[in-house]
Amino acid sequence: MPTVEGQPVRSGAADDPAWRIRRTEADLNRLAETESIFALSNGWIGWRGTLDEGEPYGMPGTYLSGFHEQRKLDYPEDGYAFPQRSDTVISAPNAALVRLWVGDEQLDVRTGTLRHHERVLDLRGGVVERHTEWISPAGHGVRVRSTRLVSLSRHPIAAVRYEVEPLDGPVELRICADLQANERVPERSDDPRAASVITDPLTAEYRRGVGTDGVLVHRTEHSRQRVAVAVTHHVDAPDLFATDTDLTPDRLRVAVTGTLHPGERVRVTKFAAYDWTSVDGTPAPELADLVAEAARAARAEGFDGLLADQRAALDVAWQTADVLLDGDPELQQAVRFAVFHLLQAGRPDVDRTIPAKGLTGNGYDGHVLWDTEGYVLPVLTYLAPAMVRSALRWRHAHLPEARERAAELRLTGATFPWRTIGGRECSGYWPAGTAGMHVNADVADAVLRYVAATGDQEFLAGAGLDLLVETARLWHGFGHHGADGGFHLAGVTGPDEYTALVDDNVFTNLMARRNLRGAADAAQRYPDAAARLGVTPEEVAGWRSAADAMAVPYDHERGVHQQSAGFTDLPEWDFAGTGEDDYPLLLHFPYLELYRRQVVKQADLVLAMQRFPGDFTAEEKARNFAYYEARTVRDSSLSASAQAVLAAELGHLDLAYDYFAETVLQDLADLGDKTGDGLHLASLAGAWLAVVQGFGGMRDDRGVLAFAPRLPARITRLAFSLRWYGHRLRVTLTPDGARYDLPDADSDAVVELDHCGERLRVTPAEPVTRPLPAVPDPGPEPTVPPGLRPARR
Amino acid sequence: MPTVEGQPVRSGAADDPAWRIRRTEADLNRLAETESIFALSNGWIGWRGTLDEGEPYGMPGTYLSGFHEQRKLDYPEDGYAFPQRSDTVISAPNAALVRLWVGDEQLDVRTGTLRHHERVLDLRGGVVERHTEWISPAGHGVRVRSTRLVSLSRHPIAAVRYEVEPLDGPVELRICADLQANERVPERSDDPRAASVITDPLTAEYRRGVGTDGVLVHRTEHSRQRVAVAVTHHVDAPDLFATDTDLTPDRLRVAVTGTLHPGERVRVTKFAAYDWTSVDGTPAPELADLVAEAARAARAEGFDGLLADQRAALDVAWQTADVLLDGDPELQQAVRFAVFHLLQAGRPDVDRTIPAKGLTGNGYDGHVLWDTEGYVLPVLTYLAPAMVRSALRWRHAHLPEARERAAELRLTGATFPWRTIGGRECSGYWPAGTAGMHVNADVADAVLRYVAATGDQEFLAGAGLDLLVETARLWHGFGHHGADGGFHLAGVTGPDEYTALVDDNVFTNLMARRNLRGAADAAQRYPDAAARLGVTPEEVAGWRSAADAMAVPYDHERGVHQQSAGFTDLPEWDFAGTGEDDYPLLLHFPYLELYRRQVVKQADLVLAMQRFPGDFTAEEKARNFAYYEARTVRDSSLSASAQAVLAAELGHLDLAYDYFAETVLQDLADLGDKTGDGLHLASLAGAWLAVVQGFGGMRDDRGVLAFAPRLPARITRLAFSLRWYGHRLRVTLTPDGARYDLPDADSDAVVELDHCGERLRVTPAEPVTRPLPAVPDPGPEPTVPPGLRPARR
Repeated sequence: MPTVEGQPVRSGAADDPAWRIRRTEADLNRLAETESIFALSNGWIGWRGTLDEGEPYGMPGTYLSGFHEQRKLDYPEDGYAFPQRSDTVISAPNAALVRLWVGDEQLDVRTGTLRHHERVLDLRGGVVERHTEWISPAGHGVRVRSTRLVSLSRHPIAAVRYEVEPLDGPVELRICADLQANERVPERSDDPRAASVITDPLTAEYRRGVGTDGVLVHRTEHSRQRVAVAVTHHVDAPDLFATDTDLTPDRLRVAVTGTLHPGERVRVTKFAAYDWTSVDGTPAPELADLVAEAARAARAEGFDGLLADQRAALDVAWQTADVLLDGDPELQQAVRFAVFHLLQAGRPDVDRTIPAKGLTGNGYDGHVLWDTEGYVLPVLTYLAPAMVRSALRWRHAHLPEARERAAELRLTGATFPWRTIGGRECSGYWPAGTAGMHVNADVADAVLRYVAATGDQEFLAGAGLDLLVETARLWHGFGHHGADGGFHLAGVTGPDEYTALVDDNVFTNLMARRNLRGAADAAQRYPDAAARLGVTPEEVAGWRSAADAMAVPYDHERGVHQQSAGFTDLPEWDFAGTGEDDYPLLLHFPYLELYRRQVVKQADLVLAMQRFPGDFTAEEKARNFAYYEARTVRDSSLSASAQAVLAAELGHLDLAYDYFAETVLQDLADLGDKTGDGLHLASLAGAWLAVVQGFGGMRDDRGVLAFAPRLPARITRLAFSLRWYGHRLRVTLTPDGARYDLPDADSDAVVELDHCGERLRVTPAEPVTRPLPAVPDPGPEPTVPPGLRPARR
Repeated sequence: MPTVEGQPVRSGAADDPAWRIRRTEADLNRLAETESIFALSNGWIGWRGTLDEGEPYGMPGTYLSGFHEQRKLDYPEDGYAFPQRSDTVISAPNAALVRLWVGDEQLDVRTGTLRHHERVLDLRGGVVERHTEWISPAGHGVRVRSTRLVSLSRHPIAAVRYEVEPLDGPVELRICADLQANERVPERSDDPRAASVITDPLTAEYRRGVGTDGVLVHRTEHSRQRVAVAVTHHVDAPDLFATDTDLTPDRLRVAVTGTLHPGERVRVTKFAAYDWTSVDGTPAPELADLVAEAARAARAEGFDGLLADQRAALDVAWQTADVLLDGDPELQQAVRFAVFHLLQAGRPDVDRTIPAKGLTGNGYDGHVLWDTEGYVLPVLTYLAPAMVRSALRWRHAHLPEARERAAELRLTGATFPWRTIGGRECSGYWPAGTAGMHVNADVADAVLRYVAATGDQEFLAGAGLDLLVETARLWHGFGHHGADGGFHLAGVTGPDEYTALVDDNVFTNLMARRNLRGAADAAQRYPDAAARLGVTPEEVAGWRSAADAMAVPYDHERGVHQQSAGFTDLPEWDFAGTGEDDYPLLLHFPYLELYRRQVVKQADLVLAMQRFPGDFTAEEKARNFAYYEARTVRDSSLSASAQAVLAAELGHLDLAYDYFAETVLQDLADLGDKTGDGLHLASLAGAWLAVVQGFGGMRDDRGVLAFAPRLPARITRLAFSLRWYGHRLRVTLTPDGARYDLPDADSDAVVELDHCGERLRVTPAEPVTRPLPAVPDPGPEPTVPPGLRPARR
């Protein structure tokens, strides 16, 4: 039960905006955005928040973790090891559809009279509720209520309950609960960041239907995957209503027909179960049996049972995950929205990872990028560590492909793909793909953080060690000891994609150093396991020596770190000559210009300072921050959170708060106009990081949990929790101080932490409170490029 | 008349290999290569050296300068200003075909008995002669002789004379002289350097046939070009032979049928005329009239007349162009072959340029690259300057597209395409395309050299000034004055395509400096013309100031120039771990590895030293050469000539000679196995440069013609000529000395030149002879990567 103040929070109050995201008829012109915001997921199934009746839609989507098709990549000028195929997410059959005919007319919010329309995402209940009152063109009125869930407790299951009542007179109804494969999708957009679209990707393999039960089994052509979806229905209707079933290769329809009189109600509940496998795996009839059994079991539990389970699962999750932000109701709601989507993106129990958009849209072709290890897992490590273990086990399961890719690239160790679904590199532009070598260190970093926060030595000794060793081997072979004595990483692309193929990107180098040291530590801790991987003491010594000599370029004249070697010598960007409409720059300037100038797409050196706070002095941080703020355009939603964290650390609290607002509202306010393609999970994760690392001042780079809080002016109370070695550490900030406690740990639990340099020992019996540190005087707010300061709140 | 020794050289001796390239039945398994070697061209029409009968073929091709289709470019990840269409050369209708039936059997060298087969490219006569004796499977023997030419004197005209005699008994013959559009072509290869192939690119628009005359007019779909080909025939056959004509949309066939008895001969001569225009230009019937008239005029002159004109044109050309190389018959032949193909690649009279493969093949999609201004024009400047003017006028004609491209790239001035046919950028991989900014300075350099060698002030004041000013504007806006006081060019790719997107590439910077200064000089010389271009004194001062401050990176520790900033700090290439089969590296290693290591595809810093000999001391040259020799893999045919020149200058004469041999034999020995796609004109030009700049020691970077000869050990006499201000300067090197004379200039002609630092004055009456300078002791030959030294001769 939630939580932060130890009091259960009542849910379901229809007007409690802190827990409910509401969209009404006014929002019907932003369908794609709403579909993303109302997307439901359990890390295995993702249902976009489409209308029950399917149309109108922005981009319908029913996604299953890992389920995809492949498409051929064509290059005007091909090159060695350019990926020849790309994975692209495709929709599984859509079981969310319920279409309604009133008389001869189909319910469609674009026709007739929409007397009322609202949908609500209930963050406590984990459901999307819909309430529509519609009068058909012929004048027949109905009230429709539906509730949709994707089950957090039963991973194959999603369900929808759909109710109709007449508004005044009797109405002839036909309710069609559809399971539809190869649903129509809109044309591909021209934006390179959007998804490719494959028409009719599924081939029917098998189908059956008995009564209101049915299964469709389909396969994909190139990825050779088989998907099965079973549905079963509970129909609660007046007598004289008839039920019939229609089965075609791509559609199973259960139709309920009759006349409804005032005071009567018809309710159709559909339970759907999904699974997929390789076409060489479970045969179609057997896969059909499996999903049919799962659907029947869900039906046996009943929709109310699923709702209760959903609520219970979220009660547990929110206990740790809730963030309290007294003083700003809009951002209070937004931060809960952010955390909710992070919680439903992962799975604790199967080896699945979390794509950049989760299962909320097909942006980036549904690919997994470094967003996962770079942003999402650093949050889930402290909220739902089992999901992190699953995601890292997924990386581990694809270590063979990563080893093959390294060999193909003629590198040592393993090279993880820049973007993928199935495990192989799918990036079609290598300077911003394959060259983004830091993804390998991001994986290692996620391993190290997970182990540091959980103490999961079993994982470290197994999959963790494999991941650390193979990535360390990559760095050791990739880098070189230069004549200057430094260990250098040449020819990489760091987080800033407006600066590519550079030498000694500070972020990459520091991440690689952590990777090398982490691998060395782990190999020495588990020498037998390391020996089985062929690790020798000499190899470990080589890693340490490379790490110790790692180059970190610094411009002594300007007194700032160079994002990469020579960066501060590059020509400046002509911000004065850049118009408002020229952003994002990548749509208006060639890479030729972007790469060679001092213009930064997204926090890079600033991200390095966030990740490695101990490697920079306070003065360096201040000078670096000012320097890079003036050159950073935030054309990536990954940027603002790191800027918030550094601004907060340096004492620019207003600026920090505004960056936090930007990152947390990225999707809820659709700031980038791209939310329709799916939610920016890294931005949502960044919102939590902005709160916890920015205002909480949490740092985890030295193996100890450290805090140096900074309470923003308008916030009267800020509270969050972290899981640390299985305990929940709660941190509550008020102007009076920071309070650390373990509200629900066993009595012998102890958490040691660092508060502004003081080592504290927190036990369940002894919460600790300390005054907030004085905020340093940071001087004037850094200049940012014209027009690019985040909106002031 | 040729020449070098003042004596006419008798041509046509069937066995004079110095002037004749011969291929026999033994070479039929290398058809594509032979087609390129035997390609005939006049800079307007190119006929591949296919067999008369069309089959078997390697890659048939009939190319017209500028005639092309466009194809869509698709990118896996598109980017701003990525070209969306590419020009690709396509075949015009093939008028070279003459097919022969003997009885019921068609002459095909793969069937029956080939008693004799030879083809000869006559470098003096400018024709390809063929002599085949073939006995059909049914036992009927024929002797076939053909002669083919592409007229140097009548640019729309190509012609073929085809003769048949019976070998012993009477033979029934059917000779079909075909004009064939949309000829079959082989499938595209996987090699990224090969051409794309469009099937059936031509749509029939218009046709007519009267007697043995006919015209086909076709159009292309996307490039919207119209091509017309007329043929007319002269048939010389015994009585009773019949002639009939067959006309379909894609083929005009004139067939000659009859029975030939021993002692008789049938001879069919076909005259073809080509023209093309935009579909919005001359209408099809009128274009048909134009080519029909041209064909009739050629027929009126007769084939023997065309042969005589051809010989006369070449006599004039060879007078300047011949290179005498006593002591090495194989390379004597090869260097003439090289010069022949350069001479027939250009046009003196229409504004056409010379693609990388000339009109000899469809490699690189028939594109023009920097090979033209970088290699071919620096030779033609001294052999056929009018062709240089034409090629530069072609650049000038496409200045509007270059200005548009610069604006699109948000750059100043003009940006010429890295590869194109029609004038727009067609490169599909920008790091090795658009980023190769030096192409713009290459154009300017060609302007400056042409003007310096000819004194053509009219050109300089007009098109030349436009080209210089717009390219200078590009550099001035592109570069920046750094904090170190230097003017820097960041983010470019130099000639070495294994090192991309670098700062301060020495070659590019020095070329840009020359460009800026050349533009400043020209603008000050023609102030009114410059003012019309908006050039102000301040602008000119800005160009000079940028030029004076141009950065040239140097590694003081290692005592060598850096090919680009930081190059010598990059990790080394693992040559020991690179296998013989790993070359060319680009087919076996990713750009990721190639770009970030010290591995050089082709001369880059060495090319800079060739182009700017006065900017490097002798010691710097020696150290630089040794350093870069050890890291250069010569995966480009552009490389060996520059290496030859520097090796010769430094006194490594054997190495220089071996590099010369490699570049001059590039195609004749098909060293790169790519000759089948067309000849490497830059390599052929490089052969002349290796002779004249390498062994002649010619330098032209200081506005004066300078020589510092180095005679290779095995060469007893080396002679070549250069045109300088309209005069022919002949240079003859023997062990006894260097002789400079003006063999055919007016009596008041004077050429001043520099021989090893001594200023000489040469007049027709006073040839000058000077001893050869002592060759410096260069020390041991530089190390090159294992297995990569050029073959020792």
